[in-house]
Amino acid sequence: MSAAARYGDPTATLGVVNDVLRLQLAHRSVRRFTDRDVTDAELTALIAAAQSASTSSNLQPWSVVAVRDPQRKARLSALAANQAFIAQAPLFLVWVADLDRARRLAGRAGAHVGAADYLETTLIGFVDTALAAQNAVVAAESLGLGAVFVGAIRNNPEQVAAELGLPPHTVATFGLAVGAPDPSEAADVKPRLPQAAVLHHERYDADAADKHIPTYDERLGAYNARFGLTGAWSGRVLERLRGPESMAGRHLLRATLGRLGLPSR
Amino acid sequence: MSAAARYGDPTATLGVVNDVLRLQLAHRSVRRFTDRDVTDAELTALIAAAQSASTSSNLQPWSVVAVRDPQRKARLSALAANQAFIAQAPLFLVWVADLDRARRLAGRAGAHVGAADYLETTLIGFVDTALAAQNAVVAAESLGLGAVFVGAIRNNPEQVAAELGLPPHTVATFGLAVGAPDPSEAADVKPRLPQAAVLHHERYDADAADKHIPTYDERLGAYNARFGLTGAWSGRVLERLRGPESMAGRHLLRATLGRLGLPSR
Repeated sequence: MSAAARYGDPTATLGVVNDVLRLQLAHRSVRRFTDRDVTDAELTALIAAAQSASTSSNLQPWSVVAVRDPQRKARLSALAANQAFIAQAPLFLVWVADLDRARRLAGRAGAHVGAADYLETTLIGFVDTALAAQNAVVAAESLGLGAVFVGAIRNNPEQVAAELGLPPHTVATFGLAVGAPDPSEAADVKPRLPQAAVLHHERYDADAADKHIPTYDERLGAYNARFGLTGAWSGRVLERLRGPESMAGRHLLRATLGRLGLPSR
Repeated sequence: MSAAARYGDPTATLGVVNDVLRLQLAHRSVRRFTDRDVTDAELTALIAAAQSASTSSNLQPWSVVAVRDPQRKARLSALAANQAFIAQAPLFLVWVADLDRARRLAGRAGAHVGAADYLETTLIGFVDTALAAQNAVVAAESLGLGAVFVGAIRNNPEQVAAELGLPPHTVATFGLAVGAPDPSEAADVKPRLPQAAVLHHERYDADAADKHIPTYDERLGAYNARFGLTGAWSGRVLERLRGPESMAGRHLLRATLGRLGLPSR
C-alpha cells in the first residue's frame, strides 16, 4: 500500500518492508500545522538524529538555528517568498553550511585552511547539511511531527544571514518548518517517478529510463487533479527551469556566496 | 545509551526516544562486509526510500547507478582513492546529480531550461541527491545492512562518468558501498560534537558554541585511542582543509563541472 501511493501505481509493492520503510514511504511535505509546540526534548532528538548522519571526514561542517520567536519567523517568512507556513510552524530550523567553525579553529591555531575556498568544500557543506537534515525529518516523522523544506531561504541569503547573526563563511542552505500536522491539510503522498526512470544497473541508460516518463506524467496528473490542480510533471519541470526569471533571485547565488565568504572557486 | 555513544558522553540521554531514533543514533560507517549479497528486493526498497525524500519543486534531479559487477567495482575503487571496501561491498551505488533528464525533456519539447546552467541548480542537484541517499542509508540499516559514503568518487569525475556511461549535465556526487556488516570490523559509533556546539537558538552564537570544542577533542581523542589512532578533532579538521594539496584532486571540481555540462554560473 505504501509503495502504491509512492508511485501512484496500485500494483506497486515492495518485496521487503518494515516499520522504518513504511514511515519513509509515507513521507509528505506538511505545510499546515496545529497549535501544538515542538518540545525541547523533541528538538534535542531531531538534532541528535541529524548529527548521527554521515559527514565527510567527520568535518561536521554545518550548524542549525532553531527559530521559535514569532516575529523572527515572520521576518524569515517575508524573506523566503512570503510562505505563511514558516510563521505558522511552531519551529523553524535554518540549516547552515558552516565553514566558519573550521576557520575559527584555524584562527586560534594560527593555521591556514585554504581548502575552504574551493567549490568542492562548499559542496561538502551543502551535502553534509542535507544528510543531517534528512535524518531530522525522519526523526520528526517518527515522533508524529511533520515538516517541509524551504529552499526559498536562498532567495535572500544575505538578509537571512543578518537576521540570524550568521558569521562569514556560512550560508543558510534551506529552512525546515516543523510541527504537528494539521489533518485538514489537503495533501497526500506525492507520487514519484517510476523506479526504472531513476535506477540504472551497471551503466546509465537514458532511453530505457525516459520511456517511463509518459506513465509518470499520467500518474502525477491524476494526483494533481485530486487537489484541483492541472498539469503533470514534464511541463512543471520545464516551467521551473525555464531561465533566471524562474529562479526567484537565486540565479545570483554564486556571486552571493562569494560575498558571504564562500568563494567556491 | 545510544545518545551516550553518539556524544561520547556517558551522561547524555534523550527525553524522547523510539526505535527509529535508536536506529539513527546507532549509525556507523561500515567498511567491511560479509559475503552475503544485497537482494534485488532490498535494492528496490532502498531506492523507494530514497525517492520518498523531499525534492525541490518535485524536480527529482538525481539518478543512481547500482554496480555489482566485480570488475566495474574494482575499476571504480581505483578511481576513488583505491579504497578496497568499494570492491569488497556486494553493492556499490553511485548517486548522480542529474540535470540531463530535464534537458532531455526540454529537447523533446523544443523548450529551453536556462536555469540548469546556474550554481543554484547544481546545488539543488547535490542537495536532493543527498536527501535521497540518506534515506537509503536509514532504510539499509533498518534491514540490517550497513553502508559508507564515498566522497572520493569526486576525485576523478570524468573517468567515473565514462565508466558508468553518464550523459553530460550529470555528475557522480558520491558513492555508497552497501552490504551486510562484518562484525569483525574494528569500529563503533563515532562521537559527534556536543549538541550545543552546532545548535543555536534564534541567533548564531560562535563563542557559546565553540567553548564545547575542547571537550569534544577529549572525547574524540579517547574514541580514537580505542582503535589505536592518535589525534583528536581539531587537528584532523585543520589537516583535512589545509589547502588544495589536501583535496585529492577535488580542488579542480569547478572546472570539471563545466566540462561535464554543469557550468554552475
